[in-house]
Amino acid sequence: MGFPWQTAAAAAVGVGIGICLEKLRRVQTVRSSSDVVKSGVDVFVKKDQLEEAVASCLKAVGTPPDKAALVAKVLVAADCRGIPSHGVNRAEMYCGELKAGLIDPTANPKISADSPSAANVDGCNGLGAVVAEFGMKLCIQKAKSTGVGFVVCHNSNHFGIAGYWSELALKENLIGFAFTNTSPFMVPTRACQRAGGTNPIACYCPGENGDSFQLDMATTTVPVGKIEVCHRKGQQIPHGWGVDNTGVRSTTSPEKVLVGGGLTPLGGLEETAGYKGYGLNMMVEILCAVLSGCHKVGPDVPPWRVDRGTPVDYGHCFICIDPTKLLPTGDFQKALSGYLSTMRQLPPGDATQSVLVPGDPERAEEGDAAKHGVRLNLQISLGLRALAQSFNCSQMLPQEIQGLPERATAPKHPHTV
Amino acid sequence: MGFPWQTAAAAAVGVGIGICLEKLRRVQTVRSSSDVVKSGVDVFVKKDQLEEAVASCLKAVGTPPDKAALVAKVLVAADCRGIPSHGVNRAEMYCGELKAGLIDPTANPKISADSPSAANVDGCNGLGAVVAEFGMKLCIQKAKSTGVGFVVCHNSNHFGIAGYWSELALKENLIGFAFTNTSPFMVPTRACQRAGGTNPIACYCPGENGDSFQLDMATTTVPVGKIEVCHRKGQQIPHGWGVDNTGVRSTTSPEKVLVGGGLTPLGGLEETAGYKGYGLNMMVEILCAVLSGCHKVGPDVPPWRVDRGTPVDYGHCFICIDPTKLLPTGDFQKALSGYLSTMRQLPPGDATQSVLVPGDPERAEEGDAAKHGVRLNLQISLGLRALAQSFNCSQMLPQEIQGLPERATAPKHPHTV
Repeated sequence: MGFPWQTAAAAAVGVGIGICLEKLRRVQTVRSSSDVVKSGVDVFVKKDQLEEAVASCLKAVGTPPDKAALVAKVLVAADCRGIPSHGVNRAEMYCGELKAGLIDPTANPKISADSPSAANVDGCNGLGAVVAEFGMKLCIQKAKSTGVGFVVCHNSNHFGIAGYWSELALKENLIGFAFTNTSPFMVPTRACQRAGGTNPIACYCPGENGDSFQLDMATTTVPVGKIEVCHRKGQQIPHGWGVDNTGVRSTTSPEKVLVGGGLTPLGGLEETAGYKGYGLNMMVEILCAVLSGCHKVGPDVPPWRVDRGTPVDYGHCFICIDPTKLLPTGDFQKALSGYLSTMRQLPPGDATQSVLVPGDPERAEEGDAAKHGVRLNLQISLGLRALAQSFNCSQMLPQEIQGLPERATAPKHPHTV
Repeated sequence: MGFPWQTAAAAAVGVGIGICLEKLRRVQTVRSSSDVVKSGVDVFVKKDQLEEAVASCLKAVGTPPDKAALVAKVLVAADCRGIPSHGVNRAEMYCGELKAGLIDPTANPKISADSPSAANVDGCNGLGAVVAEFGMKLCIQKAKSTGVGFVVCHNSNHFGIAGYWSELALKENLIGFAFTNTSPFMVPTRACQRAGGTNPIACYCPGENGDSFQLDMATTTVPVGKIEVCHRKGQQIPHGWGVDNTGVRSTTSPEKVLVGGGLTPLGGLEETAGYKGYGLNMMVEILCAVLSGCHKVGPDVPPWRVDRGTPVDYGHCFICIDPTKLLPTGDFQKALSGYLSTMRQLPPGDATQSVLVPGDPERAEEGDAAKHGVRLNLQISLGLRALAQSFNCSQMLPQEIQGLPERATAPKHPHTV
């Protein structure tokens, strides 16, 4: 989730010449399992092979083939966009939930309320991606028929990156919004405990010739994954990302954020308008969970862990708008492309870093993935291998992952413990 | 605009006993014009009298009575909510635009595209409030008929506080969103010039027994008014609110922000995720200006000054949702009130400051205004008096303003120069 410019811009610059060098270096430097784990070298795999491998794991815990294929596609899409925290890294957690009987992998969503442009969908505790696909497709239909569609879903589960669902609308030349609530990690302004998720907002808008505006952001300052990465690397985090267990004191210690503290809402502390991010976070919670009739809202949403013992009951919200109902066909796309170009051509404050618009870094990553394969962090590759081995389906793994040194292992995902 | 907790909470605590004391102090201490100007004492006036005085000024520059009454009501509503930067303080600017022939005060908006749940409205360069009322009423109708309404407006002008329009939906037990683009003041992440307005997002949702969620926030860290206040008081601003003319360097000098620099998007600099606020700011620009067909978008929107020589061509966007189309009647209101109570009852990090939800401070201010009259800063009162005098309609002013010392004068509004 989010809009990781620093990482993504660095990646975009380096990838062109870097990939060949990196592949070479990998062959040269990987000598032992422990080298492998420490080196942080990436593995590049074919997208469809990776999807099949993830789907095999999901099928091994009772997911029907079509639903497993959809979930795998959503997870791999995140890796392609340079958002590995929401990619195949999550397969272990999904499988853990399925094994624990927390999600019904066979459930089909059904409409619980319907009007010409709005609907409420009961996810029946099915896979989040299955519920989201059903909800967004219904929303697209309604937008095409009346000008705008608005669909909420309740009784659902983790649906992957929000942008994946906005993109379904984009492919139909519609404006697409996707929102979801998640388990508590955000500490509201003035509070001293977590009481909201990272509650993302995604908004995709179609431009001309394949260009588009692609906003996909957590309403917290950063997603949990960024804190976890700093923690693993033993780095401090900048002031403003998180608070300690007092709730009102900024901390640079990732550990204090992860244990007892939490993420700040977008804006950070109260002085720098964190109350606005908190307001947006509540807005997402209301649209997704309150308006759809979820039984668990805000601080009462169970933690996203396999030992929670109860369905997580997430809610989603989708909005689609058909621009041709407001302007002559093609005028919106043309005007949007003009606006995006204007912004990209603004004079930069630092000549080495040009001005971007939301989606630029992720689109560059997607282009690289299409050319060179999906880039997987070694740890994530090893995690996927261990998962596949546990289900006796490691023969489905791409050769690049199967061929990693035997003794290399990755740590368990913290939420599956 | 915004969510000024510190100010508002302080005000809420003090107002109960403070007003009587303050009125007494005013009588005791005000001795000369210069005392008056420096004292910062507030004037309390009856709401309907204030509305009539503002309407008189607007009528003096050619506004028909019904339209003048509406604009006056919107401005006074901002003062009642404790947002004086968007209140009668703006009357001088509006009158200046009307006198300069930049707005057509007699124009009636018309529908330029229509479908069952979406529409585009041509504001015909009329008063922003007139366009916004037309757009939001149309949006409400569509939501009641199809479940959701989506209306954009182009060729419009400044429409006051966004929350005023969301509140029209709230009164009908609907969820109401209001957005507008404005003149450039926000410096995008990595850019070194202003290229977007404060572009607010308002979202109001109805609870039970008059309770509600009322988010109304600029997508910049703070609105321009907060910087102007610090500048007048000779105070530094906190890091993260604004940048100097490099675009990428935070400054604590309000002057550097106002001259050559600009406001940061919500989140502040890039390190603290200012790119997210920039993304939200662009999203608002797209919904309001690109999707409605405004001719001027983003950095090309003219400055909001009377010497701009051209219509400002603002765009707005309204979304209404009827919760009864998604849940049985009353269920949403009940669930929302439960969620708001849960959040307000979270344990606070600092025992002296309880956790609030968006709208709590403004609602407290409104209650005070209803009881004690609208609180007007002395400078703003003097500004209104000077304006009324210039139109020979000072007899319409509330006695409390007419009776201020003769020689007291207020500085001209910076944008009318």
